[in-house]
Amino acid sequence: MNPATPQTFRAIDVIRKKRDGGELSHDEIEYLVNAYTRGDIPDYQVSAWLMAVVLRGMTRAETAALTDTMLHSGEALDLSSLSAKKVDKHSTGGVGDKTSLVLAPLAAAAGVAVPMISGRGLGHTGGTLDKLEAIPGFNVNLSVSRFRRVLEACGCAMIGQTAEIAPADRKLYALRDVTGTVESPYLICASIMSKKLAEGIDALVLDVKTGSGAFMKKEEDAVFLAELMVETGERMGKQVVALITDMDQPLGCMIGNALEVVEVVEILRGEGPEDLRQLCLELAGWMLHLGGVCDTVAEGKRRSEKLIASGEALDKFRKMVELQEGDPRTIDDPKKLPQARNTMMVSSARQGYVASVQCEQVGTACVILGGGRERKEDSVDPAVGIVLHKKVGDAVSIGEPLATIYYNAEERALRAKQLLEESYEITGAQAGEKRPLIHRVIGQRVIDQRVIEKSGERN
Amino acid sequence: MNPATPQTFRAIDVIRKKRDGGELSHDEIEYLVNAYTRGDIPDYQVSAWLMAVVLRGMTRAETAALTDTMLHSGEALDLSSLSAKKVDKHSTGGVGDKTSLVLAPLAAAAGVAVPMISGRGLGHTGGTLDKLEAIPGFNVNLSVSRFRRVLEACGCAMIGQTAEIAPADRKLYALRDVTGTVESPYLICASIMSKKLAEGIDALVLDVKTGSGAFMKKEEDAVFLAELMVETGERMGKQVVALITDMDQPLGCMIGNALEVVEVVEILRGEGPEDLRQLCLELAGWMLHLGGVCDTVAEGKRRSEKLIASGEALDKFRKMVELQEGDPRTIDDPKKLPQARNTMMVSSARQGYVASVQCEQVGTACVILGGGRERKEDSVDPAVGIVLHKKVGDAVSIGEPLATIYYNAEERALRAKQLLEESYEITGAQAGEKRPLIHRVIGQRVIDQRVIEKSGERN
Repeated sequence: MNPATPQTFRAIDVIRKKRDGGELSHDEIEYLVNAYTRGDIPDYQVSAWLMAVVLRGMTRAETAALTDTMLHSGEALDLSSLSAKKVDKHSTGGVGDKTSLVLAPLAAAAGVAVPMISGRGLGHTGGTLDKLEAIPGFNVNLSVSRFRRVLEACGCAMIGQTAEIAPADRKLYALRDVTGTVESPYLICASIMSKKLAEGIDALVLDVKTGSGAFMKKEEDAVFLAELMVETGERMGKQVVALITDMDQPLGCMIGNALEVVEVVEILRGEGPEDLRQLCLELAGWMLHLGGVCDTVAEGKRRSEKLIASGEALDKFRKMVELQEGDPRTIDDPKKLPQARNTMMVSSARQGYVASVQCEQVGTACVILGGGRERKEDSVDPAVGIVLHKKVGDAVSIGEPLATIYYNAEERALRAKQLLEESYEITGAQAGEKRPLIHRVIGQRVIDQRVIEKSGERN
Repeated sequence: MNPATPQTFRAIDVIRKKRDGGELSHDEIEYLVNAYTRGDIPDYQVSAWLMAVVLRGMTRAETAALTDTMLHSGEALDLSSLSAKKVDKHSTGGVGDKTSLVLAPLAAAAGVAVPMISGRGLGHTGGTLDKLEAIPGFNVNLSVSRFRRVLEACGCAMIGQTAEIAPADRKLYALRDVTGTVESPYLICASIMSKKLAEGIDALVLDVKTGSGAFMKKEEDAVFLAELMVETGERMGKQVVALITDMDQPLGCMIGNALEVVEVVEILRGEGPEDLRQLCLELAGWMLHLGGVCDTVAEGKRRSEKLIASGEALDKFRKMVELQEGDPRTIDDPKKLPQARNTMMVSSARQGYVASVQCEQVGTACVILGGGRERKEDSVDPAVGIVLHKKVGDAVSIGEPLATIYYNAEERALRAKQLLEESYEITGAQAGEKRPLIHRVIGQRVIDQRVIEKSGERN
């Protein structure tokens, strides 16, 4: 708000309007959020407003206004000096989801700039910053100017939230966390999009998870949030596409911070589990397409495979690790990553096929081991984690290992073991069709893309 | 909550449960309200919970639990030493509603004890305490022991809220006031009933107003609140009846604190406007019936008329005024009440019939004169006010007085005059049926009463 503008709003009126189901104007939202960020409106009024938003919802215009206000509450990066298109990827969070660590160097190797600002894990889901910090020395707290220098030097950089970016979101999120007002697609959308758009990007690929390990268990909720974020991004002049992807079992086989770095390196070597590899290629295909280096997503995927095969993607990762003060030897020698002192096997009690793996429980088992956080202030043990040997559809005999637990405290390992045993459902007959990895793609650009691909097929 | 009970609840869980439409247990409500009253839960969590209650509602059991918790957050009066039944009346507030000042001495004259704890006016509605304080010297701030002595001496006593009664309500109401969470029938019910039940009464007559001057403009909302309060009172073992009464035009002819005392004395003399007289008799009939001194409401009304005709009701009022340090000479000589310095006439600009009087506007006109409060901290001028000469259905010729304004500041009088002119709707033809004064009666007792009256008719 222009400081010269006389104050014409009252918090109580904005609260009442939303309570009664009215649509707030851009000015009303801007007034409330900015006055709150400045400390001119108390917490108790804003928490009442947040609850009214949770229960009454917001229109698309209100969601865009909230995103815009939060984005402009702080500094937005100006990366216009970089000639490459700036594209980021954001995931709504899952178990074993380490795609960011693959995608940033992979897209950078293709000539797309990836200025990635990420978060930490909370609850049963992991966080990109925690995974990066499993690499000894890796510094996620770069200043904005150093962030820019790394980005210029290698095409990608990965850091944590800075104090300058979207301070309104930080203050609002802290209040939402303690007032039961986190669970609103409108507030989630504004929180994610304000921070991502503050990165100075041209395009954004969203990975919206659905299934037992996702925040949005139901696909309809994931689609709703995805559509909201795509439209909000487009209203703000950005290219945004959202992939609804499966999180009904963990992604890949490794869960736990250092273990996930190992699996990232495997993927960048052209190895690793097929589901993780496919999802990385799909997301990379979109990043390369939106980043303007490939005409189609299919071409983007093929290009990504080549960059993996040639070792260029792994070289880029090694370079970024070096530039951000991490030990690059960990890339070629995983034993240099933090190692848990002990392992414990989880074996199958029956013969049959894996019908399902309760994904949130697996994530919780990792938290119990010390690999995640129950509260924001908890510290994380990078060495502990779980390696899954069986996933949905796999045959298993009695006594065969389902998973290996990497642990530093036996009491925790025993609790995790019980949870893992409970999370595997083994049935006599093999299940029918498996859930697809990519449920659907949302965004205006998808249509353009299909047109291009079809005309390409005809040629 | 028993202080020895280990704390097994978390505010965030109670908030989430209500947000998601769940029913809270008595223990959960008790935990939240008591911990908030003690200062162990911050405002911002409770305001989020309050907004969830406004938008999700409460079951009858939750409403009763909230009422019970608020009632027991402070001291409840023990009036069991008084042999008479204790009966109070509560009105949801209106314009010109001075029935409390008539009813307390009238019911007391019939042998019912009336321990009345009232509030001040806010917004367009007046308040009983402000009216009483228009009587020079009248003290509404008696200690609980003096309140009891006045009650024992004359059968009625009228004071303001004390610090001991329902402190949880006081703290919650202050928060509701600034967070847009006043307008919930469940919260209104718990606030009213907790304070009334803390008076140590046996029975309660509720006067729930509906129409343009009421908080509940729509009759269905008034009925909903009335049913909620009746059921809540009955769950707590009290006899409660609610009359839905008309507030589509001011009650009686006088609005303003000293003026309303004048009209109270008129009614107690057997004079005064018919609508006010009828409503007082109806409410008194119910108080006498529930107070056990009359077998039927009809008998209670007849008994009340006799107590007015004999002067006993007025004597009781004079005695209460004396016992509460007020100047009793004001009863017989209204000139001893505060007098406004000037009067201004509001005349009709056309000939016809009064089709409607916008009741909230008349109340607001009185606030503008200084006779009410826009904010709780405003002081009130007892002398100013409005006398209506024409009410709905009355014939009026051009230039004939509609109302007289009693004022101390001309600029305010001119604004009030304009509002009054706008509030009168004059039409050429006389309107059809008038709105009834009593719309309906709600409460289990009504059924018993009808049975009694019918069997009485048969005899």
